[in-house]
Amino acid sequence: MARDGAVSVEELLARREPGRSLEAPFYTSREVFDLDMKLIFHRHWIFVAVEAEIPEAGDYVTVEIGTTSVIVVRDDDMNVAAFHNVCRHRGARMLTEPSGVVGKIVCPYHQWTYELDGSLIHAEHMGAGFDRTCHSLKRVNVRSLAGLLYICLADEPPADFDALAEAMTPYLAPHRLAETKVAASIDLIEEGNWKLTMENNRECYHCATNHPELTVSLFEYGFGFAPDDADTDRAAAMEAYERICAEFETRWTREGVPFAEIDRLHGCATGFRTQRLAIDRAGESQTMDTRSACKRLLGSLSEPRLGGLSFWTQPNAWHHLMADHAVTFSAIPLSPDRTLVRTRWLVHRDAVEGVDYDVDNLTEVWRNTNEQDAALVAIGQKGVSSPAYVPGPYSPYTEGLVEKFCAWYVERLSSALSSTSAETAPRAL
Amino acid sequence: MARDGAVSVEELLARREPGRSLEAPFYTSREVFDLDMKLIFHRHWIFVAVEAEIPEAGDYVTVEIGTTSVIVVRDDDMNVAAFHNVCRHRGARMLTEPSGVVGKIVCPYHQWTYELDGSLIHAEHMGAGFDRTCHSLKRVNVRSLAGLLYICLADEPPADFDALAEAMTPYLAPHRLAETKVAASIDLIEEGNWKLTMENNRECYHCATNHPELTVSLFEYGFGFAPDDADTDRAAAMEAYERICAEFETRWTREGVPFAEIDRLHGCATGFRTQRLAIDRAGESQTMDTRSACKRLLGSLSEPRLGGLSFWTQPNAWHHLMADHAVTFSAIPLSPDRTLVRTRWLVHRDAVEGVDYDVDNLTEVWRNTNEQDAALVAIGQKGVSSPAYVPGPYSPYTEGLVEKFCAWYVERLSSALSSTSAETAPRAL
Amino acid sequence: MARDGAVSVEELLARREPGRSLEAPFYTSREVFDLDMKLIFHRHWIFVAVEAEIPEAGDYVTVEIGTTSVIVVRDDDMNVAAFHNVCRHRGARMLTEPSGVVGKIVCPYHQWTYELDGSLIHAEHMGAGFDRTCHSLKRVNVRSLAGLLYICLADEPPADFDALAEAMTPYLAPHRLAETKVAASIDLIEEGNWKLTMENNRECYHCATNHPELTVSLFEYGFGFAPDDADTDRAAAMEAYERICAEFETRWTREGVPFAEIDRLHGCATGFRTQRLAIDRAGESQTMDTRSACKRLLGSLSEPRLGGLSFWTQPNAWHHLMADHAVTFSAIPLSPDRTLVRTRWLVHRDAVEGVDYDVDNLTEVWRNTNEQDAALVAIGQKGVSSPAYVPGPYSPYTEGLVEKFCAWYVERLSSALSSTSAETAPRAL
Ligand code: FES
Ligand code: FES
Ligand code: FES
Ligand SMILES: [Fe+3]
Ligand SMILES: [Fe+3]
Ligand SMILES: [Fe+3]
Repeated sequence: MARDGAVSVEELLARREPGRSLEAPFYTSREVFDLDMKLIFHRHWIFVAVEAEIPEAGDYVTVEIGTTSVIVVRDDDMNVAAFHNVCRHRGARMLTEPSGVVGKIVCPYHQWTYELDGSLIHAEHMGAGFDRTCHSLKRVNVRSLAGLLYICLADEPPADFDALAEAMTPYLAPHRLAETKVAASIDLIEEGNWKLTMENNRECYHCATNHPELTVSLFEYGFGFAPDDADTDRAAAMEAYERICAEFETRWTREGVPFAEIDRLHGCATGFRTQRLAIDRAGESQTMDTRSACKRLLGSLSEPRLGGLSFWTQPNAWHHLMADHAVTFSAIPLSPDRTLVRTRWLVHRDAVEGVDYDVDNLTEVWRNTNEQDAALVAIGQKGVSSPAYVPGPYSPYTEGLVEKFCAWYVERLSSALSSTSAETAPRAL
Repeated sequence: MARDGAVSVEELLARREPGRSLEAPFYTSREVFDLDMKLIFHRHWIFVAVEAEIPEAGDYVTVEIGTTSVIVVRDDDMNVAAFHNVCRHRGARMLTEPSGVVGKIVCPYHQWTYELDGSLIHAEHMGAGFDRTCHSLKRVNVRSLAGLLYICLADEPPADFDALAEAMTPYLAPHRLAETKVAASIDLIEEGNWKLTMENNRECYHCATNHPELTVSLFEYGFGFAPDDADTDRAAAMEAYERICAEFETRWTREGVPFAEIDRLHGCATGFRTQRLAIDRAGESQTMDTRSACKRLLGSLSEPRLGGLSFWTQPNAWHHLMADHAVTFSAIPLSPDRTLVRTRWLVHRDAVEGVDYDVDNLTEVWRNTNEQDAALVAIGQKGVSSPAYVPGPYSPYTEGLVEKFCAWYVERLSSALSSTSAETAPRAL
Repeated sequence: MARDGAVSVEELLARREPGRSLEAPFYTSREVFDLDMKLIFHRHWIFVAVEAEIPEAGDYVTVEIGTTSVIVVRDDDMNVAAFHNVCRHRGARMLTEPSGVVGKIVCPYHQWTYELDGSLIHAEHMGAGFDRTCHSLKRVNVRSLAGLLYICLADEPPADFDALAEAMTPYLAPHRLAETKVAASIDLIEEGNWKLTMENNRECYHCATNHPELTVSLFEYGFGFAPDDADTDRAAAMEAYERICAEFETRWTREGVPFAEIDRLHGCATGFRTQRLAIDRAGESQTMDTRSACKRLLGSLSEPRLGGLSFWTQPNAWHHLMADHAVTFSAIPLSPDRTLVRTRWLVHRDAVEGVDYDVDNLTEVWRNTNEQDAALVAIGQKGVSSPAYVPGPYSPYTEGLVEKFCAWYVERLSSALSSTSAETAPRAL
């Protein structure tokens, strides 16, 4: 690499041109990937699961971020706790299923046994001098935001999660996500860098041509159109859209659900954005017929025509909450050119499959949309891997949030790198 | 790597012993592979396709060299053009099929649309300040040599392609490759470094034992035999071979096809060699019965007993042109230990499958021969990967062209490295 | 890697805490793996095969250690010889099957032909100046220890193999392994570093819960139990165990088989340990019914109730010899996180399958036990790959031999590194 004058990551960050896609190494290099894992995914709040997956004491899910495996478990006090999935004896991974129920956490290797608060309560043959209290499971920070579970692998997580929680709770509360159940969950591996997954998510410039199912319910106008491109037909359509938005605002006000846009994507670790958006036609849900997919509405909502609350968090998640169901998405980097996208569909926990909802109908839009996006991310990765690739310009209209994502990323990585270089060195190789 | 005193590539090149196979890192190291891609495959003329694949305007093939993807297309003026397959917006790979037909090149991501001359003619939502003329597709140099298409990824390609074209056109012209069609095409991945593929191609020391199909038509004597090894039987056979060669020369002279050997494998970027060779038995074609595989002869040829014109180009191609059909081969490195060998069989464009030729019969010899060679390349790669491997001696008789290939490679890499080290550094990571 | 202050392997070795598992890079890093291959597996005596696999002249097996392939062959004088499986011409791997019979070793590429003593006897086309005597196959050191074949890839192998042979021959001799045949052989790939495979092998702390088949015949008390953990039941069981051991010692003395424990795991290159162990219930064999799996006993043994002679060699092998059969195991590193475990079951060479023994019955215990161990090694590897992993304490009772394995490894790698740094540099890249 150094042969022809390597450009350092610091230099690449410093010379990044706002308004353009990133230089190739950000999408392709192993060094940048390792930094992304260490400085972004190990130091920020990462959306990984929903409370609805672990309703009872002992219910757990395991979550993998890089080579780190974390147990997220409902403990005996009904709180959500998180621990590194690493035995304190010889380090074995203890829980190997994606989810399950346990009374205690027992390592399968030599049966060291831990309580759900992480304390070691049994370790045979260790002799008199052995102190069990020094061998508790290592805790991981975990926070529930109205039922959405975020973990932070750093010892000192960003403090601004409180500000996020304060701002977002009123928006999320009416949907009562903690009282839902997971009706469906799909893992999809996209053949591209996680930042291409996120950039793809942050714009709808590509929707009209690529997402036939999604655009039944979605007004792409909501994502910014160039005024000079607007022809007469489009001008009329946009005017109609404005009228519909006004109707939705009246309804939101009547139902008491907050809808003011919040955009804190700049200058903070836990960047986020929310927007309540109108839905086309019947106006109820992101489904093929734009009507509710679940008869039982979320929480105590009674008005199905609420449109959708979209909520995006940096670095890796987005969520759409409607009156009848919610869809949550997380992107987890697997390698410089592979990313896991996990999608969960949530319905009221008392809704009955086959009676209140049909899984195929519930998932049809995003199942297809995700696969279409995966194909776009894959051609994006292939393209930026070419030596001929140079960063191109984002549309100032339809790609504003892509630029905000990149700006946040560059800002966070730069600041982490400058603080890291001052640290003394941890372990390596 | 540096732990026990790494030897630099420069040092390995400098100490290379003529007449012996290369040291192991040339076949196994990632660093050498990256240099091979950058300094050999991105700076020389690379055979990638034939005109016969893209006869009509809008016909295209995509070609991948490393992570570079190139569109080779017949443009609206019926010329062959080549472009990087990278959208100037956010870099997506645009054409994802190996071949097809297009009116314009439309990026599937956000529909930026390019003419077949590379100019951007449509890009929505980019606003008033956006200058389309700055966002044309990047051109790639492309040359047709009597229907054989070579590209060069460097901005300034080696100038000596002209000399090659001048020398070779008279030899190739009678076969009129531009007026052929591709009757069959097979991709084979060899489990070895591309230089082992090329070395294997440049000798016939291994033919007698390994290629039962090929040696039906091929005189291995043509590739150099050690005189002191010749026993009485072999001496008689070689004498017979000389007589047959003389007969072929008479015929070539009568038909007006040039046959003087040309060997420019030294001291030039675009090294090549040609030789018109007798064919055994019926003398017509590299087939199992040594007779023409296609009734319709190429161009306006009427004499089927023309033997075969062999034409080799550095770094990655070889071709055999007979009266009835031609076979072209290209080797494209995939990784230090994997190489794609693409073989195409060409017949007169008016020949009718099932009437004039049978694909199985046409391809039988090289289909089998390629697979046999792939097995040899694979054991070669395994062997040179052993720490016990040391370069061994080439036969001065049967491996002269292997030595010439290695000498050309060492010369080109050395000269590229010395000129590169003087450059200022491009981008890296 | 160097970004955040890389810790060198030397430093990791120096700071290793006795009594705890190794730091993560020893199990996960490519650099350590390369050093393990070079300094451990290329400089020590490695168990690779048994004489029983090559009873006749010309019988061979091929053995792969990293990228090195070795031919182990019974030569024309009925001695065991070993050669690098690399042709001296252009380096091809010559014998590609795991085993077979040859008269001479003929390279498939250009038919260079070698005698079973490694001398080159035929190489066509090489001309008058070519000296065949300079192109013999490269020899590899090989030693038979009572039928167990060890090779050493270094030019100067550790001299202490003689001491091993002197000590162990009396123990092994009664089982006459050279007069056995391989009744079954299974290759299993464990998804973990080779040292995790070895650590797993060196303790039985995990046996009670994980090995239902093995613990039918095996007394886990033999591997060390914590006294303070002993409850009344266990104390009674251990007392019973002591009585049974005394009975076995009487029998071993009567049969004239040595049984004193030898433990030379410290301060020597060719570390080893042996112990003759009682077998539970019928006391005969590591089978599901603890009775002999083969009616024909090994050598001239007539007493089936001999328990089992266990024999462990550093770095990579273990063996269990009973009256009726023997099982040998070798572990060969494939990559930092993959290890080949090869298991062979040996019976008297005159035993008849279906009459004297049944392969399923013979292999049932270790077939299952190996798969159980593979699962444990895999969760071990996953766990130590987490950034949250820290070395944990070994049990002073049940994991003493794990500590001895690690201590030997650290000692050998440290001493090799300090001697290597003084050397001049061999080839690199
Ligand atoms: S590794 Fe968990 S109990 Fe031993
Ligand atoms: S990447 Fe091609 S149009 Fe956007
Ligand atoms: S490589 Fe073995 S004979 Fe040529
Ligand atoms: Fe999309
Ligand atoms: Fe060949
Ligand atoms: Fe075990």
